[in-house]
Amino acid sequence: MVVPVAVDSAIASELRAILDERLSVSGAERAAHGRDESYHRPMSPDMVGYPENTGEVAAIMRACTRTLTPVIPFGTGSSLEGHIAAVHGGLCLDMSRMNRVIEVRPADLDVTVQPGVTREALNKELAKHGLFFPIDPGADASLGGMAATRASGTTTVRYGSMRENVVSLEVVLGDGRIIRTASRARKSSSGYDLTRLFVGSEGTLGVITELTLRTYGLPEAMSAAVCSFPALDQAVSCVTSVIQLGIPVARAELLDEIYIDAVNRRSGLELKTTPTILFEFHGSEGSVKHDAEEVAALAREFGAESVESATTQQDRNRLWRARHEAYYAGLALRPGSKGLVTDVCVPLSNLARCIAETKADIDKTNLVAPILGHVGDGNFHVCFLLDPARDDELALAQAINRRMVARAIEMGGTCSGEHGVGYGKAEFLAAEHGEALNVMAAIKKALDPLGILNPGKMTEAALDLSRHA
Amino acid sequence: MVVPVAVDSAIASELRAILDERLSVSGAERAAHGRDESYHRPMSPDMVGYPENTGEVAAIMRACTRTLTPVIPFGTGSSLEGHIAAVHGGLCLDMSRMNRVIEVRPADLDVTVQPGVTREALNKELAKHGLFFPIDPGADASLGGMAATRASGTTTVRYGSMRENVVSLEVVLGDGRIIRTASRARKSSSGYDLTRLFVGSEGTLGVITELTLRTYGLPEAMSAAVCSFPALDQAVSCVTSVIQLGIPVARAELLDEIYIDAVNRRSGLELKTTPTILFEFHGSEGSVKHDAEEVAALAREFGAESVESATTQQDRNRLWRARHEAYYAGLALRPGSKGLVTDVCVPLSNLARCIAETKADIDKTNLVAPILGHVGDGNFHVCFLLDPARDDELALAQAINRRMVARAIEMGGTCSGEHGVGYGKAEFLAAEHGEALNVMAAIKKALDPLGILNPGKMTEAALDLSRHA
Repeated sequence: MVVPVAVDSAIASELRAILDERLSVSGAERAAHGRDESYHRPMSPDMVGYPENTGEVAAIMRACTRTLTPVIPFGTGSSLEGHIAAVHGGLCLDMSRMNRVIEVRPADLDVTVQPGVTREALNKELAKHGLFFPIDPGADASLGGMAATRASGTTTVRYGSMRENVVSLEVVLGDGRIIRTASRARKSSSGYDLTRLFVGSEGTLGVITELTLRTYGLPEAMSAAVCSFPALDQAVSCVTSVIQLGIPVARAELLDEIYIDAVNRRSGLELKTTPTILFEFHGSEGSVKHDAEEVAALAREFGAESVESATTQQDRNRLWRARHEAYYAGLALRPGSKGLVTDVCVPLSNLARCIAETKADIDKTNLVAPILGHVGDGNFHVCFLLDPARDDELALAQAINRRMVARAIEMGGTCSGEHGVGYGKAEFLAAEHGEALNVMAAIKKALDPLGILNPGKMTEAALDLSRHA
Repeated sequence: MVVPVAVDSAIASELRAILDERLSVSGAERAAHGRDESYHRPMSPDMVGYPENTGEVAAIMRACTRTLTPVIPFGTGSSLEGHIAAVHGGLCLDMSRMNRVIEVRPADLDVTVQPGVTREALNKELAKHGLFFPIDPGADASLGGMAATRASGTTTVRYGSMRENVVSLEVVLGDGRIIRTASRARKSSSGYDLTRLFVGSEGTLGVITELTLRTYGLPEAMSAAVCSFPALDQAVSCVTSVIQLGIPVARAELLDEIYIDAVNRRSGLELKTTPTILFEFHGSEGSVKHDAEEVAALAREFGAESVESATTQQDRNRLWRARHEAYYAGLALRPGSKGLVTDVCVPLSNLARCIAETKADIDKTNLVAPILGHVGDGNFHVCFLLDPARDDELALAQAINRRMVARAIEMGGTCSGEHGVGYGKAEFLAAEHGEALNVMAAIKKALDPLGILNPGKMTEAALDLSRHA
């Protein structure tokens, strides 16, 4: 159990000795660091610190351990489940000043970065070497944050998620010890897989201070295809069929007709306003052409009314920029609204049914709730556009979300495909993991016995909730 | 610390109540279960049990917890680092009777199996559905054992290792609790990655009783190419270049001239006796042709003297069967010899140098020590062919292995690419992992506080050794 600690001046002055003017207690800065991009209630930390190197992080952790001060690592604040809310106050550790690309190693296809580097900054650097880092959650998130939440996104269908693309981490533990989770070898059978344990641990087991990531050569050729379907289930079935046939698509993104309308308005596109799949293909000129033809033929089999390709970089960029802005384009459909974004992921064979049953739930209400999804992974999002002043809308959306999660778990899926747990999803962990939740809690206790690392989240919040249920 | 427990008749009769005639204390059976395929000293368990379902395993674990009886899970005994040696006696849990393929789900591209199913048996079943499971460590190992040792092998360069291909596990913990590590979703951000924690844990954290694995559609086309090089470093550099260019080879296996000679003799092949790379290509007809041409051109650039392709299934089978039997073919070069097989893995850019420096060490001795490797992963094996009666040969081989491991770690690599730790590699964990070894030990203590699960291995052995160093 965490002991909520009132931050007294002793710890503040100790931290100031380490960080000097890089420790802030200003109200504006605290507020900005207690708020993510979600509908969840913001909770401000007592202090915000900006470390510049691993040694500082270790010194900070030692001081916070001595004083039982909660520590919440912070990337760019783009998370969606209240991950960075200071449930018990304490110190927000903003990693944005640790933003150096330490070494690009084209011959090893890896790169070592500090956690504050964002994925766009990394890709700008990698492009100079003919390389790229594929994981793309939409937001220009920090790589430390992406590892901490096991981020994935539009290209995971081809390249995997952060789970598959983190080679090794440097982590500062709660007591200030510094560890390296693995060597730089591409594979290893030496000891427990600490890398994967920290990937997805959301700052509850340690602070990531350095990452070594896999990189990939920029594909020789890329192209995109826009396939418009009369109905959602045809679009979804087309993609699951593409995956089952092993066609190595690089992206396979569903947008329903509401989202297509929204991105048309925002980005000046003229896409047919029906359920649509955006495909992308990476490879040699020949394989890209081959894959695109196979997919086009399949799409027509599944009833696609139009299949248009985008081979120029300009067209593709425009398309994917529109896709990335879909969240904001959606919010713009209802000015002043706040989004509640769901995030279940199910085995492919259940995806069409899961989406259809969810849509039936939505259709029984007056809520505006467009759907998009990384359907090649079995993952989709409903974005409820809510009037922040109307608690009834929020309650209704939350009820539908709870039904979605229960349905997904019953179908062999998960409550979170990629957004993580934070405190927003903690209520679902017991149902999803059963006894395994206690194993997770035992690991948390072994690595952070004082419970100072991002308290009130993940297993801790889940067990609290199930005790009070 | 484990307490070595003399197995008294009380626990034996308790286990007999669960297993009936499936509990054995015969000398021959005990001996067969204390011995793997390595040069390490065999150590027999006191009893061998053959559970038939998860409930039995849970009951057994509860009994063994009460009596502090060590439990050693056993697959097929093909491990190479003394993983299954009964260092403190106890019960060997032979999982071979839990060998049912529970469900093949072509639409989800996954399959659920019991741990005693071997990879060849699984592939026979999957082929009926047009699917295959790619991980291929050479031996016809059990899938439970392969997960427990984080196995990889010849196809990892394309498909990853067990790390990437286990979707979910059912595990019985030391105290008999049964957990499921994850849902069947292809990705998830819900909680700590228990799946990856148990993959590679070598029976020290729990007993795997069920696995859900990814499967892949059988490729439309496959072909192989045999590239013979004048020298080892040209062969290795060719492969690292193939990987750096992102050509998606399915296999890229090095055999040095001694191994080529050995497999020619054993398998009646007539390969040129020079360092050789065996490539395999999977994909569509067009992409396989394209990839093979690119690789052939590169091989010639790197000095290959001949590039021969094998496109018929018969030729390919012959080639890969020969490759798989290389270990035994090598041993046959020196009749009566025992193999000491090394297993380092380094970042690609250091591989050629690592092999060259290792070869220089070997050349200073009279030892016969052919080299083969999964060089696309940076992983290679030296197989020292030792006269079991000559301790001086063993000591010399061990000294070279220690130098290899130190060199690999210094180059950013690992002491074990795929064979695991057991007790044979425990001495290297402290050097490779530093402080992280204590984190691994904390996890072991949290999940197996009594230390009854495969005691005397991995972190426990490593910390014992460093305390006595």
